[in-house]
Amino acid sequence: MVRELTVDLGTRSYPIYIGEGLLADIAAYFEKHGISKASPLLVVTDGHVAKHHLKLVMDRLAEGGYTAVSYTVAAGEKSKSLAVLEDIVGACLQAGLDRKSTVVALGGGVVGDLAGFVAASYMRGIRFVQIPTTILAHDSSVGGKVAVNHPLAKNIIGAFHQPEMVLYDTSTLLTLPDRDVRAGLSEMIKHGLIWDAEFTAWCEANAEKLIGLDPEALQYGLYNGCAVKAAVVSQDERENDLRAILNLGHTIGHALEAVAGYNELQHGEAISIGMVGAAMLSVRMGNPVEILTVTERIFKKFGLPTRIPAHFDTEAIMRAMMHDKKFSEGRMVYIIPTAIGKVEINKNVSAEWVREIVDRLKRED
Amino acid sequence: MVRELTVDLGTRSYPIYIGEGLLADIAAYFEKHGISKASPLLVVTDGHVAKHHLKLVMDRLAEGGYTAVSYTVAAGEKSKSLAVLEDIVGACLQAGLDRKSTVVALGGGVVGDLAGFVAASYMRGIRFVQIPTTILAHDSSVGGKVAVNHPLAKNIIGAFHQPEMVLYDTSTLLTLPDRDVRAGLSEMIKHGLIWDAEFTAWCEANAEKLIGLDPEALQYGLYNGCAVKAAVVSQDERENDLRAILNLGHTIGHALEAVAGYNELQHGEAISIGMVGAAMLSVRMGNPVEILTVTERIFKKFGLPTRIPAHFDTEAIMRAMMHDKKFSEGRMVYIIPTAIGKVEINKNVSAEWVREIVDRLKRED
Ligand SMILES: NC(=O)c1ccc[n+]([C@@H]2O[C@H](COP(=O)([O-])OP(=O)(O)OC[C@H]3O[C@@H](n4cnc5c(N)ncnc54)[C@H](O)[C@@H]3O)[C@@H](O)[C@H]2O)c1
Ligand SMILES: NC(=O)c1ccc[n+]([C@@H]2O[C@H](COP(=O)([O-])OP(=O)(O)OC[C@H]3O[C@@H](n4cnc5c(N)ncnc54)[C@H](O)[C@@H]3O)[C@@H](O)[C@H]2O)c1
Ligand SMILES: [Zn+2]
Ligand SMILES: [Zn+2]
Repeated sequence: MVRELTVDLGTRSYPIYIGEGLLADIAAYFEKHGISKASPLLVVTDGHVAKHHLKLVMDRLAEGGYTAVSYTVAAGEKSKSLAVLEDIVGACLQAGLDRKSTVVALGGGVVGDLAGFVAASYMRGIRFVQIPTTILAHDSSVGGKVAVNHPLAKNIIGAFHQPEMVLYDTSTLLTLPDRDVRAGLSEMIKHGLIWDAEFTAWCEANAEKLIGLDPEALQYGLYNGCAVKAAVVSQDERENDLRAILNLGHTIGHALEAVAGYNELQHGEAISIGMVGAAMLSVRMGNPVEILTVTERIFKKFGLPTRIPAHFDTEAIMRAMMHDKKFSEGRMVYIIPTAIGKVEINKNVSAEWVREIVDRLKRED
Repeated sequence: MVRELTVDLGTRSYPIYIGEGLLADIAAYFEKHGISKASPLLVVTDGHVAKHHLKLVMDRLAEGGYTAVSYTVAAGEKSKSLAVLEDIVGACLQAGLDRKSTVVALGGGVVGDLAGFVAASYMRGIRFVQIPTTILAHDSSVGGKVAVNHPLAKNIIGAFHQPEMVLYDTSTLLTLPDRDVRAGLSEMIKHGLIWDAEFTAWCEANAEKLIGLDPEALQYGLYNGCAVKAAVVSQDERENDLRAILNLGHTIGHALEAVAGYNELQHGEAISIGMVGAAMLSVRMGNPVEILTVTERIFKKFGLPTRIPAHFDTEAIMRAMMHDKKFSEGRMVYIIPTAIGKVEINKNVSAEWVREIVDRLKRED
């Protein structure tokens, strides 16, 4: 069974297909959505994904009458750089990609963000298709945010460039390492926490199935996670206001990532701690304590961290946060849960309270 | 007197102001168009322009209550690179530019294209202002095409990103070297040739005044050149069809630039030859010979080249053209003048004829 969703953005609307084994029919999906056979395609992937899934994609595209070349980057965040982008553009030129060509991102968020920015900037913008192969990428492949990193800041050079479609073949997820599975589920839970109490409860009840990559649970979970993302993005494509709610847990999360040694915390792990922090802030502000209890309980069920490792320095975390966000007169903007499945954008959170929460996240267990 | 024009693009419309000494009032223009004082600005310029015009801009911005830092790149096409872009983004981060900040391009087409792409991609797009300081930049500063080069191809990595306004202070042009003056006028004449027979005749009649930088003539010429560019861009922002007419003379021109040694031919010089070539093709196709006579006569009056230097290799030029454009079955797309002030997009020009014209451009004088 293939589930289908639409990201509603007027003339830039596009479908998300979710199902097991979709990639066997990749050429048919491409044809259905008008991807030209007259112009060459470039498939961008990384070393890990290439090993398991590239051959199928290249074979099925060729069988379907497409001319495609592939470009494999080193796995990992470091490939999201301008230097790698320049190299990929060289490959586009050598393969003769023109204004009617399409860039295909086959991989997780790293490949999606990088290949998406290639597509956004090559010849000032050509088409692209997202083929997410991680659970986290149910978040990153939807919404059109693409970017590379600068040595001084993550995701700082990029564009809004919506894909032609998202093709989510859940069978690719079977090769994903367990730690990446859990980290990706952290963003799925986030989508429940900001938007949908029922889905949050479903996630909690199905934690074991999700961690175990049960096909039915996975597809239902990804479908609902994507649906929240799509709904939010449809209402605010360029993050003028509402889209900011997708950053629940990310203020503390980004700071932890910045302070952590390379690879100590994955993004999904950093934000599960951040979401617990946001729940603590919420309770501190007078909201029901249940918000914190439920949030903590869920992440524990998924084996995701809910506390800051003790050796992290509170002052360093606060500095990283100030670098990321603007404090003005000791207040900052913060996404605060007001109930399970509901958040508000609070522009008046005391920086002092945030420091208190960071401290508490380090102490308690 | 300040002349004013609008580039009509719905919500992305913006004004072009042309006048002598405008920059003295830069802060007032910024204020008028809602450029925030709360967020820092970055002024990008090059070494030549900085020497003559940077201090005025920085002083007047500071006096007007703006916080601005400047970044000076080396003069010349080589600065239009991803490496320089990465460095400028570092400067943006260090200066604390945020989503409400503005990038200001103070310079010719190189600075405009580069700084424009910084603005298009920093934080996925912030505002920018064009302050053109060359005559050629009456073309490049209008229309929102921004880009950097790849070692294998010019302008291949970029975006469509419209400025908030174009501030054209013609007094900055007084320091421009004579060769750049003439090369810039080549694009002004192009704007006449594709769109406006009367303006073409005016250009010819005022050649000496224009070359001599007579203020009144310059302002009138730039106003009309910008008006043509604005009219075309308003009808086809993303070059789906009409905008291609701006490439009159550019097919041969780009090939000559690709084949020429560094700096042998300026862009404006390469396209004056190319426009003569297009006129020859037009006559070859049966249009009135007057098209060629007038085109040649004008460029000669401006001291711009009308012939390909003899040492250029015809085959190399043809290869460069095939790399740039697509020939299919011996036919190619070409912008052909059908009268002075009128062109057509002809999708069926024989490559054999083009070769014939390239040969003729090398022989005759
Ligand atoms: N654009 C957005 O809106 C958005 C949103 C969230 C995150 N992101 C970005 O996403 C990135 C993180 O995404 P990610 O967690 O998917 O990272 P990732 O792409 O690095 O993938 C994680 C790891 O899993 C491997 N992998 C991927 N698919 C696999 C598969 N099917 N089998 C085996 N191994 C596989 C990868 O090689 C990598 O080692 C970050 O760069 C982040 O900035 C972007
Ligand atoms: N974006 C577009 O639509 C578009 C259109 C046409 C050309 N372009 C681009 O424009 C560039 C060429 O533009 P250009 O000819 O302005 O080149 P440029 O910016 O390199 O300027 C030419 C020379 O004049 C110097 N200079 C500029 N202003 C000066 C001044 N007031 N006084 C003294 N010296 C001055 C510069 O330092 C440089 O040495 C190319 O990179 C081309 O690709 C872009
Ligand atoms: Zn995230
Ligand atoms: Zn030009």
